[in-house]
Amino acid sequence: MTVKISHTDGIQSFFKEAAGFGSDNGSPRLKSIILRVLQDSAKIIEDLEITEDEFWKSVDYLNRLGGRSEAGLLVAGLGIEHFIDLLQDAKDEQAGQVGGTPRTIEGPLYVAGAPLSAGHARMDDGSEEGVATVMFLEGQVFDTQGKPLAGATVDLWHANTKGTYSFFDQSQSEYNLRRRIITDAEGRYRARSIVPSGYGCDPQGPTQECLDLLGRHGQRPAHVHFFISAPGHRHLTTQINLSGEKYLWDDFAYATREGLVGEVQFRDDGARDVTGRYAELAFDFQLQQAAAPAAELRSHRPRALQESC
Amino acid sequence: MTVKISHTDGIQSFFKEAAGFGSDNGSPRLKSIILRVLQDSAKIIEDLEITEDEFWKSVDYLNRLGGRSEAGLLVAGLGIEHFIDLLQDAKDEQAGQVGGTPRTIEGPLYVAGAPLSAGHARMDDGSEEGVATVMFLEGQVFDTQGKPLAGATVDLWHANTKGTYSFFDQSQSEYNLRRRIITDAEGRYRARSIVPSGYGCDPQGPTQECLDLLGRHGQRPAHVHFFISAPGHRHLTTQINLSGEKYLWDDFAYATREGLVGEVQFRDDGARDVTGRYAELAFDFQLQQAAAPAAELRSHRPRALQESC
Repeated sequence: MTVKISHTDGIQSFFKEAAGFGSDNGSPRLKSIILRVLQDSAKIIEDLEITEDEFWKSVDYLNRLGGRSEAGLLVAGLGIEHFIDLLQDAKDEQAGQVGGTPRTIEGPLYVAGAPLSAGHARMDDGSEEGVATVMFLEGQVFDTQGKPLAGATVDLWHANTKGTYSFFDQSQSEYNLRRRIITDAEGRYRARSIVPSGYGCDPQGPTQECLDLLGRHGQRPAHVHFFISAPGHRHLTTQINLSGEKYLWDDFAYATREGLVGEVQFRDDGARDVTGRYAELAFDFQLQQAAAPAAELRSHRPRALQESC
Repeated sequence: MTVKISHTDGIQSFFKEAAGFGSDNGSPRLKSIILRVLQDSAKIIEDLEITEDEFWKSVDYLNRLGGRSEAGLLVAGLGIEHFIDLLQDAKDEQAGQVGGTPRTIEGPLYVAGAPLSAGHARMDDGSEEGVATVMFLEGQVFDTQGKPLAGATVDLWHANTKGTYSFFDQSQSEYNLRRRIITDAEGRYRARSIVPSGYGCDPQGPTQECLDLLGRHGQRPAHVHFFISAPGHRHLTTQINLSGEKYLWDDFAYATREGLVGEVQFRDDGARDVTGRYAELAFDFQLQQAAAPAAELRSHRPRALQESC
């Protein structure tokens, strides 16, 4: 028979003590959260009869996960980040805040402070010329009534042909494939970049170790990340996932959503100022109105190179 | 009104997918555990209305916690390690496996492979001579019938006068204050060491950061850790917590238990081969019989310098 003690008064009092309820200092909010985490953790240990070895393997896993800064990757891979999007969608629906381009996960690889330019940017540093396919990415930012938003900030970032990101891949130049573009009078942004490859978890990393044990791959389709913001409008965190990709609808991070697939057109017609084959990708965004000033800002998630602005 | 979606078929199917239930590969056991963790995490997020900022602060905290290898310290500080002891006590009671010295938490600072000696060991490297008080620690290992156990291994480790441990405190010599002593024909072990100071969490570390937010301190009373093992007997993980210590019954890691307080006697009678004041601490242990060979071994918790023996 399974032995359980976590429901007893003695253990409940102990958890309250451990969560700081015996102290006048500290954060009442965190105390409540920790108490719940303790109660639920104890129930998991009892209900699933977690062995001592399993428990300590998990603790060691958390050390190794954090040691590689992969906690953000794991919460994406286990679908928690997508769940938070779905929950926010449901909250929005109840509040009547509907319409606009769908949100999707940010992922852990944003870097603040990318070069800023007006209307247009070249995103790649040219280091993959001859290997990469040039990509022309453009579109407009609108409000939900279809009015173009001039002066919106399109903060976009994507991987190189190896599927890796500057800053995290130290072999790339600073801010390679990361730019902030301010939309023009027609709400238009234009970028010349390269077609990214899909991202894959580090095969030696703790996230992939977990996915392996779940019988899952750790691959994403090629995609471009976006933060889009404009005064008076709600901040949008989203992605374009590229059509024709093997993992488009089998994304380990569950970021692909209806309305967020970008149709890449490959051309070889000499119409652009590039030699040979190139890609075009057009994608427009619609921003909701901000219900309050705070909604204009992205979350305060701790990020690489947190800037002050 | 709180919006909840985690109970819906759609979300439950999504979590099953994320936990790998759609795959024939991987570990069925881990899939079940991860599914439960996802379900419970989602309920916590919904019930406590965890904000996006709170969620990402937690993810960042896990990275910083693991980055400092403090997950083992946090589970001690939040009482989960003690809870696991209490749960094992309850299981033992139900199985009729009672008697012997109480178990208590191991903590995260064991290092395998300490010097081995027969009957007696000098534990300190002499580097704190003049600062530390010499401590003579001795006792016998018995079975629960009171029969002395010859050839038992007493694997003990403790902090120095600063409350820090060799290996983790790189300023100490290798294996300082860590020894393995094989009991003599009377089951006796004897050690000459120094009186340790209580351990305190790193004030700059993530564990203390959490404890601060809970309004709690991160201090332990001075104590000596023990692994005690003998053929045919159940492995014992325990500690002696020293009498007269400020934090004896206010231990942030909840390791002090009835039956595990060591009465330190300070003397200045010249009876021992030391100049001035010294301490004596006598402590005996009783080991249960092993119900199965596996019970003779300590858990397979990943530890520093995991040895092969």
